[in-house]
Order: sequence, then C-alpha cells, then structure tokens
Amino acid sequence: VPAYSQGSALGGVNPDLASERQTPSFSVEKLTALLDGGEENTRIRRAVGTYLQGLETTAVFDIATQEFILNTPKISAMKWWPGDMGRSATHAVVFAQLDIQGKCYGVHPFIVQIRSLWDHSLCPGITAGDIGPKMNFDHIDNGYLMLQNVRVPRENMLSKFCEVQPDGTYVRRGSQQINYFTMTALRVALISHEAVIPLMKACTIAIRYSVVRRQSKLKPGEEEAKILDFQTQQEKLLPHVAAAYAFHFINNYLEDLFNRGYEEIQRENFDMLPELHAFSSGFKAMVTQYCASAVEACLRACGGHGYSLLSGLPSLCTRILASCIYEGENTILFLQTARFLIKCFMAASAGHPVPPSVTYLAAVKPGKCPAKNKFDFLSPDTYTEAYQHAAVRLISSTAAKLQDLIQSGVKKHDAWNECTVQLVQAVKAHCHYITVKNFAETVERLETKGGIQRIMKHLCDLFALHGIFSNAGVFLHDGYISGAQMDMVTASYLDLLAVIRKDAVPLVDAFDFTDKTLNSALGSYDGQVYQRLYEWAQKSPTNTQMNPAYERYLKPLLHKKLSKL
Amino acid sequence: VPAYSQGSALGGVNPDLASERQTPSFSVEKLTALLDGGEENTRIRRAVGTYLQGLETTAVFDIATQEFILNTPKISAMKWWPGDMGRSATHAVVFAQLDIQGKCYGVHPFIVQIRSLWDHSLCPGITAGDIGPKMNFDHIDNGYLMLQNVRVPRENMLSKFCEVQPDGTYVRRGSQQINYFTMTALRVALISHEAVIPLMKACTIAIRYSVVRRQSKLKPGEEEAKILDFQTQQEKLLPHVAAAYAFHFINNYLEDLFNRGYEEIQRENFDMLPELHAFSSGFKAMVTQYCASAVEACLRACGGHGYSLLSGLPSLCTRILASCIYEGENTILFLQTARFLIKCFMAASAGHPVPPSVTYLAAVKPGKCPAKNKFDFLSPDTYTEAYQHAAVRLISSTAAKLQDLIQSGVKKHDAWNECTVQLVQAVKAHCHYITVKNFAETVERLETKGGIQRIMKHLCDLFALHGIFSNAGVFLHDGYISGAQMDMVTASYLDLLAVIRKDAVPLVDAFDFTDKTLNSALGSYDGQVYQRLYEWAQKSPTNTQMNPAYERYLKPLLHKKLSKL
Repeated sequence: VPAYSQGSALGGVNPDLASERQTPSFSVEKLTALLDGGEENTRIRRAVGTYLQGLETTAVFDIATQEFILNTPKISAMKWWPGDMGRSATHAVVFAQLDIQGKCYGVHPFIVQIRSLWDHSLCPGITAGDIGPKMNFDHIDNGYLMLQNVRVPRENMLSKFCEVQPDGTYVRRGSQQINYFTMTALRVALISHEAVIPLMKACTIAIRYSVVRRQSKLKPGEEEAKILDFQTQQEKLLPHVAAAYAFHFINNYLEDLFNRGYEEIQRENFDMLPELHAFSSGFKAMVTQYCASAVEACLRACGGHGYSLLSGLPSLCTRILASCIYEGENTILFLQTARFLIKCFMAASAGHPVPPSVTYLAAVKPGKCPAKNKFDFLSPDTYTEAYQHAAVRLISSTAAKLQDLIQSGVKKHDAWNECTVQLVQAVKAHCHYITVKNFAETVERLETKGGIQRIMKHLCDLFALHGIFSNAGVFLHDGYISGAQMDMVTASYLDLLAVIRKDAVPLVDAFDFTDKTLNSALGSYDGQVYQRLYEWAQKSPTNTQMNPAYERYLKPLLHKKLSKL
Repeated sequence: VPAYSQGSALGGVNPDLASERQTPSFSVEKLTALLDGGEENTRIRRAVGTYLQGLETTAVFDIATQEFILNTPKISAMKWWPGDMGRSATHAVVFAQLDIQGKCYGVHPFIVQIRSLWDHSLCPGITAGDIGPKMNFDHIDNGYLMLQNVRVPRENMLSKFCEVQPDGTYVRRGSQQINYFTMTALRVALISHEAVIPLMKACTIAIRYSVVRRQSKLKPGEEEAKILDFQTQQEKLLPHVAAAYAFHFINNYLEDLFNRGYEEIQRENFDMLPELHAFSSGFKAMVTQYCASAVEACLRACGGHGYSLLSGLPSLCTRILASCIYEGENTILFLQTARFLIKCFMAASAGHPVPPSVTYLAAVKPGKCPAKNKFDFLSPDTYTEAYQHAAVRLISSTAAKLQDLIQSGVKKHDAWNECTVQLVQAVKAHCHYITVKNFAETVERLETKGGIQRIMKHLCDLFALHGIFSNAGVFLHDGYISGAQMDMVTASYLDLLAVIRKDAVPLVDAFDFTDKTLNSALGSYDGQVYQRLYEWAQKSPTNTQMNPAYERYLKPLLHKKLSKL
C-alpha cells in the first residue's frame, strides 16, 4: 500500500521524494481536453455510485426476541474514528436509526459488545479494526466498525430520555433535542482541554524562547536583541497570550451557562437547550479555529527549532488541528449557530422575546464610533460597542439578503446555501463580540486588585484592538469606524504590544505548567534552550543506533571510489 | 528524555495524556506574585547568559600552512539543520566568518570533510549528529555540527567571486551582494517545488474528494448533496485552486526574471541583484505563507478523513509548513523586501529612476474605484488598479510614518522597528498586486484559445476578488472602494464560486498528478474513496500485528474480572 510510506510512524520513505523534482505540468492543451471531457460526471459519479449518508446503520426492534438487530448497510456507512475501538474496546456505544415495525424514530445509542471477554476475538457479525496512521493521536487506536445482524437485548438501548417498551411502544420523555445534549456537553468540555490549554502551552513555550533567542541588532553597537523586542515578534505572540486569557474567561462563562442549563434539564425544563446548543457550537468552532492558527503561529514564531519535535510545538499543533474537525466540523457548527441567530433576529425584529445572550439584536442602532483619538480606543465601552455594531450589521444584512432571495422566488434551501459564506462571517462576529464583552466584564469585576486589573485591562484592550485591526473591513464597511479612526486603533494596538511585552514572561508563567508537562526544549522554566536541545538531540535513536544506510549503501560506494583513486 | 515520548516516529506515549485533564490554573494571586517577581530578568537572562548570534563560526587564515582554521565558539553557535549531515555526509560546505590577520571579511563558504571515507567515523575536531525528530522530513538526517580547530587547505574556500591569495591578500570580483545569490536562487526554486506543487496536490485531493463525499441534503427529498455543491465548501477550496494557477504563473515570471539576472551576472553586471533579491524574498514569503494555510484548509475541508495520513494531506501540510521557515524565515524576508520598497519609494518620490517592477510607486494617484455594479468588478483593469492603489497607499503611509518618527527624534533603528508590522502588510500588498497583474496579463496572452481563456479569466477574477473580499479593510480604508462597492465585490465573488464549481474537477485533473504521486486514498482518479480507505486501513501494521497491550494489560484485567463473576 503506497500510503504507508507516508507516515513517520511506519518508518517508510517519504513519497514526495519521487515527485520532488516534478514541475507543474499544467498546459493549455491538456486543460482544453479536460474541460471538454466532463470528467466529474462521466468518471467520478459513475465510478462511485454510492454516497455516505450521515448515519445509515439501523437498529430494528424484534418484538419476538426483545432484541435490536443492528446492521451497517455498506462500506461507505461504516463507523470510522471512535477512539480505543480499533483494537482495545470490548464494548461500544453505537448510534443507529431506531426502527420499530418499519417506522423510523431517529438516532439512538445502543451498547454493543464487539469483542470476546475471553480471548478478545471479534464477536459474530462484527468487523472492526484500526483506521491506520493519523496526524497525531498515535497512542489512540481509533477504529472502524461494521455490524451485520448483530443482536443486542432491549435493555442495551440507553433510555434516560426515551424508551422502547416490550410491546414496541416508543416513549419519549422531554425534548427531542435532548439527543444533542451529549454533543453540547462534549463541545463545552473540549474548549478548555483541547483548545485553551494547548494555546496556553504554546504561548508559554514561544514567549520563553523569544526572550532567550537573540537575532539581529536593534541598535548598532549593542548586542543582538531578544527576538521578543522586535515589534513583529510581539505581534505574532502577544495577541495570542491575550486570546488565551479571553478564551479562559469565556470558557468559565460557558461552563456556568452549561451548569445552569443542566440543572434545568434535570428539572425536566428544556427551554435553554437551543441557546446552549447554539453557544456550544459557535464557541467550539470559533475558539478551536482561533487556537489552531494561534498555536501554529507560535510554532512558526520559534523558527526552525519550533519545527523540531523537541520544541513540543508540533504535537500541540497537530493535536489542536483535530479539534477543528471532531465533535462537529467547524463550518457546520457555525451554520448551526447561524440558524439560531437568524431565528432570534427575526423574532427580535418582530418584537418577540429572545434569549438573554441575543437581546442586543433587537437594539439595532445606526451611528458612528465616537472615538476622537487613539486613547479613546482604550475604553471597553468604545470597542465593545464597535463589536456589537459589527455583529448586528452582519447578522441583519445577511438576514435581509436571505429574505430578498426568498421573496424573489429562490427556494428556501438554495437561498440559505447562497448566504452561508456570509452567515459564517456573522456568527464569528457574534462570538467575537460576546468574548470581548465577557472579557471586559471580567476585568471590571477585578476592581479591588489593582495591579492585576491594570494588566488584565491591557490584555483585554489588546484582544479587542487586535480583532479590529485584523478584521478592519468588518468595522470600516458602513463607516462605523472611519479610516482615520482605524489609524488610531492601529496606533493604540501597536502601543499595547510594547506595554504588554514587559510582562510577557510572568503572564505565561502564570499558566503554571511544569517543565514535564510542557515537554519542550525551548520552553523550560530555566531558559537553557541550546544546552537542552543539544542534550536531547544526542539521545535521539538516530544517534544512538548505527546508520543502517552506511553498511549497505555508503560503505560499498565509498570503498569502490577509494580503490579507484 | 521526556521529549522522545512526543514523536510518533519514536513510538512513545503521548505526553499530553498526563496533562489531559489539567484545568487552566491561572489565578489572580499567582499572577500578582509573578508580576512582582520580574521573572524574565532575574531568571531567564541570568540563567542563559549567552545568545545565538547569526553566525559565530570563524575561519582564520593561517599563512604559514596555507590553511583555514575553523572554530565554532560555543553550543549556541552550532550549525543546526543542514540536510544529510546528521549521519550520512562525508563533506559539508560550511559558512564561516573569514578572518585574515585579525580582519573580518564576512561570511564565506568552505568545503570541510567531516567523516572518514574509510570507516565513516567523525574527523578530528568534528562534533556532528542527528538533530532528532521533526514534524516531517523523517527521511532526511538533518544534523548538527561543531568545529574545533579544523584545518582545511586554502583551495577549499569556494572562490568564484572572491579569493584569498597565498599571501593573505583578499580579492573580490563583483558585488558583495553576490554572497546572497545562492539564497536568491534557492528561494526562487523552492516556490515551485515546495509550495506550488504541494498546493496543487492538496487541491486535487480535496476537490476530488468533495465530489465523492455527500453530506446533508441541499433540497428536501433529494439525495444528499456532494459537499462541493455547498457554498462554504466552494469558498474553502476554489480560491485555492485559483491561487495555485496564480502562483504557477508568478513562478514562471520569477524564473524568467531570474534567468535574465543570471545571464547579466555571468557578464559581470550585478545591477539586477537588489531587485532579484527583493523579489525572491518577498515572493518566497508570500507564496509559502499562502500555500501553507491553503493546504491546511484543504485538509480541514476533508474533515476527519483529511486528518488520516492515508489522505496524503497531513504530510503535505507539515512539509509546506517548513517552507515558511527555511531559506529565510518569512517575516525577515518580508522586511528585506520592505527595505527595497521603501528605498525605491523614496527614490521614485525624488524623481530618481527605479527598477521596472516598482515604477508604479512613482505614480501615486488619488481617486476612487469607478465600478458601478458587480459586473464592473470582473474587469481586470478595475481590480488590478485597486490592488495597485492599495499597495501604493500602504507603502507611502508607512514611509511617511517612518519619516515622521525620525523627524520627531526617534532613532532610525527604533523607528524602523516601530513600523515593521505595517511594513509587512505593505510588502504583502505589493506582492499581491504583482501576482494579480501578472495573472491578468497571462490571461490576456491566451487570446487565441477561447475556451481556456474564458475559464482562466474566471480563475483570475476569483483570485483577485477573493483577495479583496478577504482583505476588505485594506481597500475600504481610504474609501477607494466604498462599502456599497464592497458588496458588489462580494456578490461577484460568490457568483464566481458557482461558475467555477462546474469546472473544478478538470481544473485539478489538469495538474496531471498520477495516483502514485498523490498517494492519497481520498484523491485517486477513480473516486473510489471508501473502498480504498478501508483496504489501506486493513493493511495498517496496527491491524496486521497483535495488540501488545492485550496480553500484558487487557487479558489479565478481563480474566480477573470474569473469574469474580
């Protein structure tokens, strides 16, 4: 299998070698032929002839035996990715379309034994194995699973909120949306563990390295400067330190919201579910997306040494990348939040009540940003207002486009599809606004602790102004912020970099990771970067083992050449 | 060594496991203590006490023996990263500061034998080894090297452009800048091999997969839609297909420029060197940076399956990431181009002649974009003009800031540092403008080939409008493009996605990669994604070998439990 030469885990030769010197072969003639060929429809559509449906596995209830019979209809419907399933787990919780006497009741979870408890062999009807090498998570045996006429007793359906009774009667308790609650819980939980903590680690490593590493002189005659004293390096890292704090605080906010929601659910009140679902989807997508690119920025900011696994950054980078995909692919999640926001916007416009987090949608105020100089942009009210304005504008203009399309005769689903790029933008603006607002409110609550409040205020300002600077178009579009005001934002933003630079090291030390947890030659507490890199490199198996290529290839070659001399 | 548990190459346990459930431990109290501690200066500065200078290795000429004596003064000055040096190469070309009788003549290249031709042992005075695991390039033994009193004969200095004569006289032929020419050549060469081709491969895989994979229904009652029919998926991929073509064409342009420059150099005319250096630096940085995030976007666009090494995308992703760092870290390269642009802008403003690629800087025209409707933005003149305007505005406003700072008494190097974030922005705008202009000119030259010109024109439009849409702030800032016009840009941009969608498959087929070269279960020509994924996964060593954890951990655990039942 050629693909196995790809993974370092499998020790093969890099396949890119073969094509390393291949030049792009695009030619006008070839493309002409291809455009005429209608490749997609003649080749791919026919060749495939099948497609993956969201969930095709079925669980048919057999009243006679009081069992569910589970089946995966085809290869493209296989379960793929569940952790520990590849070669460890004895049981799995399988989601399947529940079918009672020919009627489908939607997706439900079933406990299925997949391996023998005695010899670990696969149970009858089970096809399962490891999905092979991945970009990270080599320690987890993610698996594939196919079921053929696998029978489980009626009791194996997880039945807290709905149940199949012995006679086949289906009983639901509570909202149908409760099915999504597990996902909601997981998404909230992963924001901290899989996105914010990796970002904090990456910031710690990159900031510590940036005050050890020196390169180029800032002033003639002086020694080379610490790279964190360069404005570009500050710009690469300090906004991400601010973001780590911002997301830490929004995570606290989400956890509170979630806990309140969960209490309500236990009282069988499901009213908060839509808001919780929208929040967890949007923030999971926004935070993981931001953190993934921020962690990568931290890696790049460490130059070549960042690229070494000894820096600890590559594994953070590839791990966090996964969080953008699992538990809901980010674009799909953004669009789920978009549905909620559009619904709320319509309701608010019609004067109906909406959940507290979106009441701001009802208060669309035209107007301009009142800031007169760069210091005005250090006022949380000023920038929070700007974020709110941008979010309302994007949501309302996309809602208007959607309505226009529908009114002009475009079908609802097509109209929705034609608005999705802008809907994603609108949701990001909404989540950004909530994050900035929550950060500003958190800073306010710190009032009695002067020193901390001051530095946290700087971070909040930096997070907010970095967002305006990096998404300038959103704020300039309708002139809410003018070009001249954007120059003030830029000036204040760049000033803040120099201010926060001074406290950069304590700000990451405060995350309190041990050297062992960071596992980084660049990021250790004592700053002994080069000594540690050298020591760790020397212990690499590539140094402690013989070079297998020498005896086999190099030695004969060299000795043959030598004998000819 | 804890770091070795990090790399999949070394088969260890993922270190993140240990901290998996660690919650962020930030607390106000801890941060207060840390802020008071002045950590950076008391801990890290003292602990390190050394710093890496750009190049500290020296080659002192010994007239008596007609040899150079090479020395690496300390660990932080070690050579790190050269390919094949870790455990294969017998000779290396070492750059060192040339010292003749106490006078330093700058960096020069020397051939140094590092290993015995007979038994491959390290030569006297040589410390060398493998730098350990990396994010990719497992097939290359990148090495470290330290030299202690290593002597090489006078002839071992590469002396095409400068020479040390037996009596120690230093003779230079041609410009001092010729030292940078190797880097210039490498940077031009790597744009195609290390950035454009990987992007073409990633686009091929992601586009082909996106017409096989189906998910969610676009229209009620229909079968699930190919994911490429969703606007968000088109937006994730099609601009990158356009970019692959744009960069392919700019690469042709650079290669022509480079070949002309090289001919001039061989005639001992070095006039084109500064422009060549600026071009190769700026475009290397711009293209690798764009391609790295585009390849990552392709991976994400394939969801979970993109994250599997079997997709072929992770190795493209980690490989291209390296290209942002090696042969000049991108920020440093952008700033080298910035120096050139600022110099040219000053010269042009003073009426002096400037190289052809930057004559546009002399023609600063105020004014507004004349577009009246969304179709006007499909005119290459309209958008090329907009890019030119943006580039001139960013360069001139940053030049003005720089002059203001210096006139207000800020020292030159500090003023430069305070402008670097904006200088990087300006260089990106310059490179973006040249790329769009070159794409438009290339399309024009295709005039006799109707079908191709039409689709290439669409791609050029898409590349240009995607750039305006994604960097809206740059164009809105001074009102050159108004908010209403930006809505027209957005409308035309989104229209183009649907237009190009139809030809997406032939447009990537035209890159003409074989299945073997792509090495991807998702991207093969026949579209048999799921069958291939399943087949390749089954052959994974994790499926063909016994699970070592079973006998050791799972079996005793399960049997013990069973015996208690």
